[in-house]
Amino acid sequence: MAFGWIDEQARARRAAGLVRTLRPRPADSPLLDLASNDYLGLARHPEVTGAAADAAHRWGGGATGSRLVTGTTELHGELERELADFCGFESALVFSSGYAANLAAVTALAQHGSLVVSDAGNHASLIDGCRLARGTTQVVGHADPDAVRKALGTHQGPAVVVSDTVFSVDGDAAPLAELADACREYGAGLVVDDAHGLGVLGDGGRGAPHAAGLAGAPDVVVTVTLSKSFGSQGGAVLGPAAVIDHMVNAARTFIFDTGLAPAAAGAALGALRLLRREPERALRARAVATVLHTRLTAEGLEAVRPDAAVVSVRAPSPERAVRWAADCREAGLAVGCFRPPSVPDGISRLRLTARADLTEEQIEHAVSVISRTR
Amino acid sequence: MAFGWIDEQARARRAAGLVRTLRPRPADSPLLDLASNDYLGLARHPEVTGAAADAAHRWGGGATGSRLVTGTTELHGELERELADFCGFESALVFSSGYAANLAAVTALAQHGSLVVSDAGNHASLIDGCRLARGTTQVVGHADPDAVRKALGTHQGPAVVVSDTVFSVDGDAAPLAELADACREYGAGLVVDDAHGLGVLGDGGRGAPHAAGLAGAPDVVVTVTLSKSFGSQGGAVLGPAAVIDHMVNAARTFIFDTGLAPAAAGAALGALRLLRREPERALRARAVATVLHTRLTAEGLEAVRPDAAVVSVRAPSPERAVRWAADCREAGLAVGCFRPPSVPDGISRLRLTARADLTEEQIEHAVSVISRTR
Ligand SMILES: Cc1ncc(COP(=O)(O)O)c(C=O)c1O
Ligand SMILES: Cc1ncc(COP(=O)(O)O)c(C=O)c1O
Repeated sequence: MAFGWIDEQARARRAAGLVRTLRPRPADSPLLDLASNDYLGLARHPEVTGAAADAAHRWGGGATGSRLVTGTTELHGELERELADFCGFESALVFSSGYAANLAAVTALAQHGSLVVSDAGNHASLIDGCRLARGTTQVVGHADPDAVRKALGTHQGPAVVVSDTVFSVDGDAAPLAELADACREYGAGLVVDDAHGLGVLGDGGRGAPHAAGLAGAPDVVVTVTLSKSFGSQGGAVLGPAAVIDHMVNAARTFIFDTGLAPAAAGAALGALRLLRREPERALRARAVATVLHTRLTAEGLEAVRPDAAVVSVRAPSPERAVRWAADCREAGLAVGCFRPPSVPDGISRLRLTARADLTEEQIEHAVSVISRTR
Repeated sequence: MAFGWIDEQARARRAAGLVRTLRPRPADSPLLDLASNDYLGLARHPEVTGAAADAAHRWGGGATGSRLVTGTTELHGELERELADFCGFESALVFSSGYAANLAAVTALAQHGSLVVSDAGNHASLIDGCRLARGTTQVVGHADPDAVRKALGTHQGPAVVVSDTVFSVDGDAAPLAELADACREYGAGLVVDDAHGLGVLGDGGRGAPHAAGLAGAPDVVVTVTLSKSFGSQGGAVLGPAAVIDHMVNAARTFIFDTGLAPAAAGAALGALRLLRREPERALRARAVATVLHTRLTAEGLEAVRPDAAVVSVRAPSPERAVRWAADCREAGLAVGCFRPPSVPDGISRLRLTARADLTEEQIEHAVSVISRTR
């Protein structure tokens, strides 16, 4: 049988307790959500869903083609201008997902003969970008500017350093300013994925690069996703206009992919405008994360000090992590459960998201459930 | 300068006349559209846009997380069941794009030690899937089952044959039944991308694999996109339940990507239900393609006989293709313009889509504009 080998892998997965199953949620789930990436609580905000609905009515259910053919609407242009302006970059280019934006940024900026220096904790989409790129990749230790310098020192020719700004699993931040310094010493470009920084870090949620003083820098390219703080779907690459033009001409996941659906572009634009009006949402997400961390630590749990709105709590084993998350769910609390093979370091953890719209009572309730079910 | 090399490439591109620019379209474009992939004319159908809007209101602007965490709603489950049922496969899994679905299908089914036999005319997303896969890829001549046999004969161990069902550039169909025969002789799996077949080919638009008698086959996996005939965004993998379970556990663009936005899932489901009620739309798209081809050929133009709803008209050079498309646009007609480096064979062409909702008058008008501006 052509796919017989799949059954063997499935058996091994079952034996190891590593089977993943999908759990469709209802529209009115009674669970308290500390599992989603809806950091600002905007995914179901009426202004965001209303903007999605309006865009679908006005522009259609889909973009109908590649951005280079019929898939660029004036709505896409508007979103790109406002996003670039908000984050402080010259230009922006919107993709159908953050994953696609990362594949594009890395592959288009790491052509034949170039070096890509990639943090060991980077997101899967950056890793796949490195694998697809024509350049050579060197993986360096996590958040280690000296290792980056050493790697850059070995290479002649174009180079880029690639890193998450906030690492998705543990929620720790990359040393952005130091990475930029290292890049500048060697004339390398810096490509950072601000998926978990946008909307949470920087002035009014302008993101980690903005907070690090890198907004608008000629040697910095930022990718973001519209699917987390902005409560929608899609991704974008931000940077100098020449780099963005280059993406339009060279990035395969831009050229050969249908443009982002109007409803998603509309929702993201709605969220962006709302965040501009209510910049305190960003601060609030960080404050909730700090409270969560402090309270969990006070309960004797081992949690990573949050640099953004992700709080990672260590679990003793994959099995215990799965059980712990299931017990939380039983008690009405949705938490993320990260474990091998989806973690870079083999460590299992509960992953909590500190949504800006959690109330004090909800935070207390969450802490008590997590602590009680440990 | 870190990105200085980009300016040189931009200069070379300008000198070669190969610069691509984005042209944002208004919501009420006056152009007659023969450029989009909206084959059934559903992207702006009120049932489809209404379903998108309803889903956004009911489920939110985004899926809020990976399909494995919070990103699977009951709406995703519904879409997957109805899609699998419609196309005649046991299970389906929805992705954020057709591109992501193709990356998933190829990488998850071509693990270390396996062989991927890939048609030379395959879509960029299948090619990127081959590049990311751990297996070894052998590219074979276009639509050539004997070349496939030869490649399979060289390999021991798991193998998959990967092909578009309808090739996106020229609109010609792959010899699916013969490819399946070749696969079966060697115990290989067949993975086909029905992006341009779904909604157009097969009984009521059930797709090319259904038309070839391959629906539900245990050794066949189909990918589709929701962004063309279904007027939305997203993609899906269809196949045996065990293969789909394997994707859930092993496909990186599934695991590490935010789920498809509810509005897009809703729009696709709306389109699917509409197509079930109005199956004649599929036939009509094919009929329009045939008329377009016949009339253009009668005008002395060189057009590829269409196997689905794409009609490719040969242009003498990249410059002439660009000029021709621009002249059509001047005359109120939007046509696709495919040229190097976005074509596999270096040939430039106008690419026309035969939308099911084009009227006789619109077809005649299109033919006269294309012929007059040649
Ligand atoms: C760090 C990081 N980058 C990129 C992505 C991909 O973005 P998207 O889900 O919008 O495709 C994710 C998560 O999904 C992420 O956590
Ligand atoms: C043959 C083929 N496969 C896959 C895709 C990608 O699908 P999507 O645009 O939905 O990502 C396309 C076009 O975009 C295509 O033409």
